[in-house]
Amino acid sequence: MSDLTVSPIRFGRILLTGAAGHLGREMRPRLKACCDRLRLSDLEPMAPATDGEEVIVADLADRAAVLALLEGVDAVVHLGGVSTEQSWERIAAANIHGAVNLYEAARRHGVRRIVFASSNHVTGFYRQDQVISPRDPVRPDGFYGLSKAFGEDLAQLYWDRFGLETVSVRIGSAFAAPKDRRMLATWMSFDDTERLFMAALTAPVVGHSIVYGLSDNATAWWDNTPARHLGYRPQDSSEVFRAEVEARQPVLDREDPAVIHQGGAFVRTGPFFEEA
Amino acid sequence: MSDLTVSPIRFGRILLTGAAGHLGREMRPRLKACCDRLRLSDLEPMAPATDGEEVIVADLADRAAVLALLEGVDAVVHLGGVSTEQSWERIAAANIHGAVNLYEAARRHGVRRIVFASSNHVTGFYRQDQVISPRDPVRPDGFYGLSKAFGEDLAQLYWDRFGLETVSVRIGSAFAAPKDRRMLATWMSFDDTERLFMAALTAPVVGHSIVYGLSDNATAWWDNTPARHLGYRPQDSSEVFRAEVEARQPVLDREDPAVIHQGGAFVRTGPFFEEA
Amino acid sequence: MSDLTVSPIRFGRILLTGAAGHLGREMRPRLKACCDRLRLSDLEPMAPATDGEEVIVADLADRAAVLALLEGVDAVVHLGGVSTEQSWERIAAANIHGAVNLYEAARRHGVRRIVFASSNHVTGFYRQDQVISPRDPVRPDGFYGLSKAFGEDLAQLYWDRFGLETVSVRIGSAFAAPKDRRMLATWMSFDDTERLFMAALTAPVVGHSIVYGLSDNATAWWDNTPARHLGYRPQDSSEVFRAEVEARQPVLDREDPAVIHQGGAFVRTGPFFEEA
Amino acid sequence: MSDLTVSPIRFGRILLTGAAGHLGREMRPRLKACCDRLRLSDLEPMAPATDGEEVIVADLADRAAVLALLEGVDAVVHLGGVSTEQSWERIAAANIHGAVNLYEAARRHGVRRIVFASSNHVTGFYRQDQVISPRDPVRPDGFYGLSKAFGEDLAQLYWDRFGLETVSVRIGSAFAAPKDRRMLATWMSFDDTERLFMAALTAPVVGHSIVYGLSDNATAWWDNTPARHLGYRPQDSSEVFRAEVEARQPVLDREDPAVIHQGGAFVRTGPFFEEA
Amino acid sequence: MSDLTVSPIRFGRILLTGAAGHLGREMRPRLKACCDRLRLSDLEPMAPATDGEEVIVADLADRAAVLALLEGVDAVVHLGGVSTEQSWERIAAANIHGAVNLYEAARRHGVRRIVFASSNHVTGFYRQDQVISPRDPVRPDGFYGLSKAFGEDLAQLYWDRFGLETVSVRIGSAFAAPKDRRMLATWMSFDDTERLFMAALTAPVVGHSIVYGLSDNATAWWDNTPARHLGYRPQDSSEVFRAEVEARQPVLDREDPAVIHQGGAFVRTGPFFEEA
Amino acid sequence: MSDLTVSPIRFGRILLTGAAGHLGREMRPRLKACCDRLRLSDLEPMAPATDGEEVIVADLADRAAVLALLEGVDAVVHLGGVSTEQSWERIAAANIHGAVNLYEAARRHGVRRIVFASSNHVTGFYRQDQVISPRDPVRPDGFYGLSKAFGEDLAQLYWDRFGLETVSVRIGSAFAAPKDRRMLATWMSFDDTERLFMAALTAPVVGHSIVYGLSDNATAWWDNTPARHLGYRPQDSSEVFRAEVEARQPVLDREDPAVIHQGGAFVRTGPFFEEA
Repeated sequence: MSDLTVSPIRFGRILLTGAAGHLGREMRPRLKACCDRLRLSDLEPMAPATDGEEVIVADLADRAAVLALLEGVDAVVHLGGVSTEQSWERIAAANIHGAVNLYEAARRHGVRRIVFASSNHVTGFYRQDQVISPRDPVRPDGFYGLSKAFGEDLAQLYWDRFGLETVSVRIGSAFAAPKDRRMLATWMSFDDTERLFMAALTAPVVGHSIVYGLSDNATAWWDNTPARHLGYRPQDSSEVFRAEVEARQPVLDREDPAVIHQGGAFVRTGPFFEEA
Repeated sequence: MSDLTVSPIRFGRILLTGAAGHLGREMRPRLKACCDRLRLSDLEPMAPATDGEEVIVADLADRAAVLALLEGVDAVVHLGGVSTEQSWERIAAANIHGAVNLYEAARRHGVRRIVFASSNHVTGFYRQDQVISPRDPVRPDGFYGLSKAFGEDLAQLYWDRFGLETVSVRIGSAFAAPKDRRMLATWMSFDDTERLFMAALTAPVVGHSIVYGLSDNATAWWDNTPARHLGYRPQDSSEVFRAEVEARQPVLDREDPAVIHQGGAFVRTGPFFEEA
Repeated sequence: MSDLTVSPIRFGRILLTGAAGHLGREMRPRLKACCDRLRLSDLEPMAPATDGEEVIVADLADRAAVLALLEGVDAVVHLGGVSTEQSWERIAAANIHGAVNLYEAARRHGVRRIVFASSNHVTGFYRQDQVISPRDPVRPDGFYGLSKAFGEDLAQLYWDRFGLETVSVRIGSAFAAPKDRRMLATWMSFDDTERLFMAALTAPVVGHSIVYGLSDNATAWWDNTPARHLGYRPQDSSEVFRAEVEARQPVLDREDPAVIHQGGAFVRTGPFFEEA
Repeated sequence: MSDLTVSPIRFGRILLTGAAGHLGREMRPRLKACCDRLRLSDLEPMAPATDGEEVIVADLADRAAVLALLEGVDAVVHLGGVSTEQSWERIAAANIHGAVNLYEAARRHGVRRIVFASSNHVTGFYRQDQVISPRDPVRPDGFYGLSKAFGEDLAQLYWDRFGLETVSVRIGSAFAAPKDRRMLATWMSFDDTERLFMAALTAPVVGHSIVYGLSDNATAWWDNTPARHLGYRPQDSSEVFRAEVEARQPVLDREDPAVIHQGGAFVRTGPFFEEA
Repeated sequence: MSDLTVSPIRFGRILLTGAAGHLGREMRPRLKACCDRLRLSDLEPMAPATDGEEVIVADLADRAAVLALLEGVDAVVHLGGVSTEQSWERIAAANIHGAVNLYEAARRHGVRRIVFASSNHVTGFYRQDQVISPRDPVRPDGFYGLSKAFGEDLAQLYWDRFGLETVSVRIGSAFAAPKDRRMLATWMSFDDTERLFMAALTAPVVGHSIVYGLSDNATAWWDNTPARHLGYRPQDSSEVFRAEVEARQPVLDREDPAVIHQGGAFVRTGPFFEEA
Repeated sequence: MSDLTVSPIRFGRILLTGAAGHLGREMRPRLKACCDRLRLSDLEPMAPATDGEEVIVADLADRAAVLALLEGVDAVVHLGGVSTEQSWERIAAANIHGAVNLYEAARRHGVRRIVFASSNHVTGFYRQDQVISPRDPVRPDGFYGLSKAFGEDLAQLYWDRFGLETVSVRIGSAFAAPKDRRMLATWMSFDDTERLFMAALTAPVVGHSIVYGLSDNATAWWDNTPARHLGYRPQDSSEVFRAEVEARQPVLDREDPAVIHQGGAFVRTGPFFEEA
C-alpha cells in the first residue's frame, strides 16, 4: 500500500493557505487537531510559527513558489486567494492561475486531498426563494464567483484525470455572527466551519464532492442531501441572532437585486463598471 | 423606495379573513405580534374588536365589499372561504370568485404579500405511501381541493404578472390534536401554524412559494425541501398522541379509498352524487 | 362488458362543443370520420345539420341545458367556451362554470372520454428560452389561461374519482398559417389538429393525459415525451412559412414581455387594468 | 369488512423467519409487543417457545413446509435465508426459491403484510461518495445482493398483482456496535431496527415500499425521503462510536474496492472464483 | 492489448442461444453478417449447421454444458430460456439458473459482450398511459418478467464486478406483424430487431445498457433517450398495420387489466392460481 | 425602442473571431447571409477582405485591441482562441483572459448576442455509454475543456447580470467527415454547423442557452431537448460514413481511456506531464 493510496484520519502535514485571513486565523489552531505539522502560507504576514507549525510566505500566482510550498504535504485546506469582488487581474492571478498552480503542484507531490474554499457566489444569481443543491448549474454573481466556479471545475478535472480528491465547500458567511438578514440563511459559525473542514478531510471517500457551508439555520436556500456522505452535522444556528438582526434591518427594498438574489450585494458590485 | 417595494418584519395593517372560523379565532391574537393594526373579516359574527383591531363583516363574493376591505392593508392572511366539501355553488362563490376578488383588490391597493390558506386536498388523490413535494402535479380530491388549486394558480398569476407575493400553505389538519390515524401524518399544531404564518409573512423573498402545513410528525407524506427558504421549523409532533389515537382506531379498512389516499374521507364525500 | 367500459375506435355519438368557432368549423367535417352521429353545439349560430349531424344551441353556463346536451353522447371534443382574454365574468361563466357543468353532465350520462381544448396559456409565463413538458408546474398568463388550468385540474379530478378519461390538449396556435415569429414555435396545422384529436379519442388508455398541441416545428418550447402513448405524430411544420414570417417581422423588441414569454401578447393584455 | 382488508396496529399472529440468527434472536422478544402469538421459524435450533410463542423448524426451500408455516399468519417479518456471500446454490435455494415459496404461501393464506429483510448489498456497487435513494437503479455487489434484489422485485410483483403489501428494508449493519469505519455510515442499532420493523408493520398504507435500514448516523449514503410515510425516526447514532472506530482503523487503502464502494468487502469476496 | 480488451466490429465467434425459437430462427442468418463462426444452441432441434455454423444442443440449466458451450466465444446473443409465463420451476431452471450459468461461463471464457433478450414484461405493471424509460424502477408482471429482471441485475453485477458488458434489450413484440392494438405500441419488426442487435454488438462502449426493443411506432410507452449511445435507429413502424389491427379489434374492455397495463395479458395469466 | 433591445433576423455587423482557423474559413462565406458587414479577426493571416468584409488582426489577450474590435458590432460568432490541448499559459491567455476581454468589450459596446464556440470537452469525462444533456454538471477533460467551461460560466454571468445573450455551442467534431469511430457520435457537418449558428443568431430569445453541436447521427451521447427553442434541426448524419470508418478502425482497446470517455484522446493528452 503506497503512500498515495492511504486515506488517514490524522495527517502528517497539512497545508493551510490563506492563513493570515480572518478565516485562516480562526482555523489555524483548530487544524492542529488532525495533523502532526501544520504548514501555513499567505502573502500577508501572520503570527510566527509555534510548535508543530511552519510559516511560509508565498504568492499563489508564483508557480515555482507553489511547487515548493506543496512539498511534503499530505492534504491542503485552501483558503488562499482573493475572497471579495476585485479587479479581474487580481482575481485571475490568485484564484485562476493560483488554483492551477496549487493543483498542479499537489498532483506532482502526491497530495491526497484538498479542501477547497469555494463560495456561495458560484450560485449567487439564484433567487432567495429558490432552494438549490450542489447539482444545479452554476450562476456566478461576479468575477469572484466565476473564479470559484473555475476552481471547482479544476478540482473535478484533477479528480477525473488524476484521482486527486477535493471537497469544494461553497462557504456561505463564515463570521462570528450574522451581520444582516441575508446571513440568517448563509451564516456558518466558526465551530461548524471546523466541523465541516474536519469531515471533508477525514471522510473515507470523497472523489470531488461539493457541499454548501452553512450552519443549521432555520432559513436555508441550499440542500446538502447529495453531500451527506461527508458526515457534516452542523450544531449551530443563526436563529439565536434573528431578533437582533431583524431589529437592525426592519425593512428590505424588494427592488434591490441584492435583496432578491442569493449572492446579496455581490450581484451589483464589482469592477465591471470601471473604464479601461 | 416606495411603499410597494418594502418588505418589512412588522406590518402596519394585516387583514385576517375567515377570522370567525376555528383557525381564525386561534390565529387572531397571535397575528397581533407582527402588526400595528389587525383587520378581521368574516361572513359570520365574531368577538368585537379590541385595541388595535378592526372588525368588518364582508362577503368575499362581493367584489365591491372586498375592494373596500383591502384598503390600507399591507399583508393578508387569507383563511376565508369554504373549508369543507360543499355544493359547487357555495365553493365557487367563496373560493373561486372570492379569491379573484381578493387578489384583484390586493393588486389595486398595493398589498405586498398574501398568506393563502390552501389545503392538502389539492393533492388528496395521491396515495398515503407516496411522498410528494410542492413541485408534483396537483390531484385534487373534490370541489374544495379543486378550488384551492385554482387559488394557487391565481397566486402564481399575480406573482408572475404583478409581482404580488404569496405563500400558499397547503394546510394539513390544524386542530388542537390529531383526531385519527390519518392526522398523525397531517396534523399541524396551532403553535406550528403560527410559526409557519409568521415565517411566510416575514421571509424576505417568497415570490409564489408553496409549502405543506404540518408539524414535525414522524410520519409524513410531504417533503418541504423546496420551501426551506421560508425558515419554517416546526416544533411539535403528533407522536405524543400516537398511542391514544392508535388505540382509538386499532384497525383500518384497506379497501376504503379514504384509508388509501392522502385526502382521507374527502375522496369519497361531496356533492357529486346529488341529482340536479 | 357494459357500455361504460368499452373503449372504441369508432364512436356512436360525439359531441363537438364550440362548433361555431373557427377551429370548430374546421374540425366539424373531420370528426365525422370516427362517429356515427356528430352532435354540434354552440352559443352562436352555425351551418345547419347535414346527414348524421345534430345541431343544438346551448349555453355552457346553463347546467340544465348542458345536462340535456350530453345525453346519449359517447365522447366529447370540448372546444366550447371563451378562447381569448376577456372579462373575468365571461371567462368564469363559460370556462369555469361551463366546464363543471360539462364534466358533471358527462359523468351522469356515462360519457367515456373528453378531449379538452386547453391552451398553451396555461404555461404562458415560462420564457421562450425554456423547454417545458406537461409535468412542469403551470404558470398561467391571464384569466383565460387560469380558467384552462382549472379545466385541467377538473379533468384530473374526474379521472381520479370517477374514471372519466380526458386528454387535455394545450393548443398552441391552430390557424391556417403562423401569423408571426412566435407562431413558428406554437403553430399547429388543421391537419395535425385533426391527427391529435383522433389520437386522443382512440388511444386505448389515457387516464388524464396532457399534451401540447403543435406541429413538427423546428423551433419548439414543449417536450411531449410524456404523451407519446397517445400516438400523435405531427406531419406538418411551420418551417415552410419561416422566410415569409421573418421578413414580415424582421426585428423584435427584447424588452417587450410578449416577446420574452411563451404566452406572447396574452402576458400583457387582459381585463385587469379596467376599473370596477 | 373482511379479514383480508384489515390493517391492524396489533396482529393476531406474526411469523418471524430466521429466528435463530443473530438479528432474529434480538427481535424475538421485541416483536411480542405487537402480536398475540409469535411464530418462530428457522433451519437451525433455537430457544424453546415461551408463552405466546410457537417454534417451527422449516426449510424455506421446502414449498410444502413453507405453505404449512404460513397458515394462520397475519404478518411476516422475513429475516430467513442466507445473509452472507455463499455459493450460488445455497443462496438460490434459500433466497430465490425460499422467497418465492414464502410469497406464494403468504398469498394463499391471505397474509396482509411482509416486512422483508433486504440488504444494502442490493446497491453495493455505488461509491461511498454517492448519496442514493430507494428509487435509484440497483447495483448488487454479489450473489447475495442479487438474491435480495430478486426478493424486492418479487415483493413488487405480489403487490401489483395481488395487493400483498411489503416493506423491503435494505438493512445496513444491524449489530450491537459499528465494527469499522464503513459501519459508521451503515450501522443500525437494535433499538432502531425494532423501531423500523414496528413502523413497517403498522403504517396504514405501504404498498411495496423500500427503505434503507440505518440509524441517525452523521455520515450516510442513503436518503430515505421517499419512505417518510413509514414514520421511522431513528433515535441512535454511530457517532458515539466514531473515536474508537477511527482509532482502530486509522488509515484506509483507497485502491481497495471494499473501501471505495458502499458494499464494502462484499464487492470483492464470494464464490465466483471457485472452479466448478 | 489482450483479447479481453478488444471491442471489434466483426467477431470471431458469436453464440446464439435459443436458436430454435421463432426469433432465433429469424436472427440466425442475419447474425452471420458480423462474425466468422456462428454457434447455435437450443434445447430443441433445429436446422443443421451450414457453412460457418456450429450447432450444439444444450440445456441452460446444465452448468457443465453451458461452460463447454461458451468456450471460444467472443460474444453472445442470448435469446435462450423460457419466453412465456410458465411454472416457476421451468422459469427458474432456464431463466434464473440458466442465466447464472451463462454469465459465469462467459466470465470464465473471457467473453466480451452479451446481448441479453430481456423483456418489456420487466415493467409490465406500468399503465399504458405512462411513458417510462430504462431508468424507472421495474414492475414485473409475472414470474417470466421477474426472471428477466433478475437477468438484468445479474448483467449489472457482472459489469460492475468483472467488466463483462451487456446490452439488455427489453423486447416488445418481435413478430412479423402486430397482432392486436397493444402491439401497435410494442411491435418490433425483424429488420429492426436485427438493427438493434447489431448496434448492441458493435457499439464501442456499452457497460450495462438497457434499451427497449420497439420499432419507430407512432404510439410508444418507452423513451429510449438514455440508450442513444447504442446507435439504434428503427426504420419500421406499426402504423402501416393500424387500420387492419383496429378493424380487427374495434373495442377494448377498459376494466380488463390486460387492456390497462403495458404487460397486456401477462398481467392476468400465469401459474399462480394452480394449487401446489 | 433602443438599439440595445432589438433582436433582428439580419444583423448590421457580425464579428467572426478565429476567422483564419479551419472552421472560421468554412463559416466566413456562410455568415454573410445574415449580415450587412462581416468583420473577421484572427491572430493569423487570412484571405483579404472582399466586399462587405472587414479584416482585423487582433490578439484576444490584448484588452485594448479587443475593445476596439467590438466597436460597432451587433453580434459575435466567437470561434477564436485555442482549440486544442496546449500549455496552460497559451490556453489561459486566449481562452480565459481572451474571453473576459471579449465579453467586457461586448458589454461596453452594447453587443446583443454572442454565439460562443464551446466544446464537448467541457463534459469529456463522461463515459461513452452515458447520454447527457446541457443541464448535467461539467466534467472537463483537460485545460482546454476547463477553459471552455469557464467561458460558459462567463456567458451565464453576463446574461444574469447584464442581459447580454449567449448561445454556447458545445461543438462535437466539425470536420468535412468523421475521422474515426468516436466521431460517428460527435460529428457535425459544415452545413449543420451553419444551420446551428444561424439558429443561435436569430432565435428570438436565448438568454444563455447551451446546446451540443452534432449532426443527426444515429449514435449520440447528447440530448439537446433543453435547447429545442433554438430551432436547430440537423440535416446530415455520420451514418453515411459508418462502413468506411468502421473498416478503418475495426477494433478498439477497451482499456484505453480515450475509447471509454466522450472526450476521446483529450482525456489522456495534454501538458500536464511536462515538468515545470
